[in-house]
Amino acid sequence: MDKVSKQTAGDGGAAMGTGDGPRTFKLTLAYDGTSFHGWQVQPGLPTIQGELQAALGRVTGESPLPQGSGRTDAGVHALAQVASFQLAAPIPAENLLRALNRTLPGSIRVLESRVVPATFHARHSAVAKSYEYRIFRGEICPPWLYPFVYSYSKRLMFNILPETATVFLGEHDFTSFAATDPDLTAREQYPEEPDGPVATNIRTVFSSTWEKQETGPGELWIYRVRGNGFLHHMVRNFVGTMIDVARGFTTVERLKEILEARSRSEAGPTAPARGLFLTSVEYGE
Amino acid sequence: MDKVSKQTAGDGGAAMGTGDGPRTFKLTLAYDGTSFHGWQVQPGLPTIQGELQAALGRVTGESPLPQGSGRTDAGVHALAQVASFQLAAPIPAENLLRALNRTLPGSIRVLESRVVPATFHARHSAVAKSYEYRIFRGEICPPWLYPFVYSYSKRLMFNILPETATVFLGEHDFTSFAATDPDLTAREQYPEEPDGPVATNIRTVFSSTWEKQETGPGELWIYRVRGNGFLHHMVRNFVGTMIDVARGFTTVERLKEILEARSRSEAGPTAPARGLFLTSVEYGE
Repeated sequence: MDKVSKQTAGDGGAAMGTGDGPRTFKLTLAYDGTSFHGWQVQPGLPTIQGELQAALGRVTGESPLPQGSGRTDAGVHALAQVASFQLAAPIPAENLLRALNRTLPGSIRVLESRVVPATFHARHSAVAKSYEYRIFRGEICPPWLYPFVYSYSKRLMFNILPETATVFLGEHDFTSFAATDPDLTAREQYPEEPDGPVATNIRTVFSSTWEKQETGPGELWIYRVRGNGFLHHMVRNFVGTMIDVARGFTTVERLKEILEARSRSEAGPTAPARGLFLTSVEYGE
Repeated sequence: MDKVSKQTAGDGGAAMGTGDGPRTFKLTLAYDGTSFHGWQVQPGLPTIQGELQAALGRVTGESPLPQGSGRTDAGVHALAQVASFQLAAPIPAENLLRALNRTLPGSIRVLESRVVPATFHARHSAVAKSYEYRIFRGEICPPWLYPFVYSYSKRLMFNILPETATVFLGEHDFTSFAATDPDLTAREQYPEEPDGPVATNIRTVFSSTWEKQETGPGELWIYRVRGNGFLHHMVRNFVGTMIDVARGFTTVERLKEILEARSRSEAGPTAPARGLFLTSVEYGE
């Protein structure tokens, strides 16, 4: 019995004695994080994980806690978050998608639903994740864009940003860009996995780029980053520090030293959550 | 002294005895109505009018109640609502715009700020208003579109809609499409104006059209209507009834009878607020 089925056996899956045992589902989710207190379930607060667990309960009578590919903070959005869980109910994957979308709030949508091998786990099986960060550049940010961008109207040099972003490429100890929350090391984040990986702040960034897009009332400056994993606040701290470079407060050379320093106090501020989207999670399937 | 200055004189304008007296401002506003209880100020509830009045107080120390071109209901949005009020403060119109946008929530933006003749009143001076109603057609409505559309996935015939929309053209008694709230006749809506116009449900619709737009995950069916005034829920009741026609529940011929009947119980349901935008208000300037 693997770790995943251990976590959900109490929900009635294997215990129901269905012939083939519970099946593992992989859901792909999009959400507007504005009105949620992040992914992770919290007592008395609306969260994505909590809404999904409750919706599974309404649809199937089972309430496994869906495992996400990672947590997203309050106000952070997803174009394609991935969640996994096990169900004993014999519901076809496509019916589960439709039934969940009928009962979930409109700010959370299931884009895809698949039955996957029991060894699949949304977080453990992930090999790469991608994020996008959107800065709105213009005098007046339209109200419908506001929850999905960082509206920043001060003078910024776009041209320095693509070069700045390359500093993060490759394998590094990203301590300078990790939230300092002492309870958010890998081991303490997941106390249910005392045999999990040793806490480390080493990650590999595969790509790190900027693009400029015209919109009606201004420009969108979009940062895209893909890596094998991200520390808490890492993308938002990348962006906050790159903005410091683009404002002329610091330089690309200095940014390299900040990365080497492995000290959070060296880097720039954390950019607001509302500009951040989890855009994809890749698996070695 | 005209009606406008009577209404705001108590706010300290003329009473302050400044040489030129208070000036009348015209603001054009965009807002995401999702988290507001409509335009009209209500004790203890967030409203657009209330937020704007409070912001004026923070910026100028004066808190005139801004008069809107009309009320928008809870959840209804605006691309260009117009508000008017008087201020004694000698603040340039352009500075007022910037200062208000710094203190208002990001879901409300001032797009334009102008000083206008004292006879200007956002509602009394309006000669035409336009609305847009957006229906999302697709299997899965993206979460970021959800607050701004009516997501309707049942079978609908688009081709019948443009013809259906022409039934509303011209001058009619639109009682069949007015909310039945007895407290929302013109006179009772505005008790501060006992000498105001006699309550009437006669309005003129100048244009009434449908357009289909492709979006990534589906289509947007957009209804646009322009008229000299609109009764409470009138556009949403137009849309709900046109959907009945597009579903095959009723016919264009029957819709003409519904209009003639002058009875709310004859028409279709009220389409949800979230799909509706006030798109412009025109003045005879």
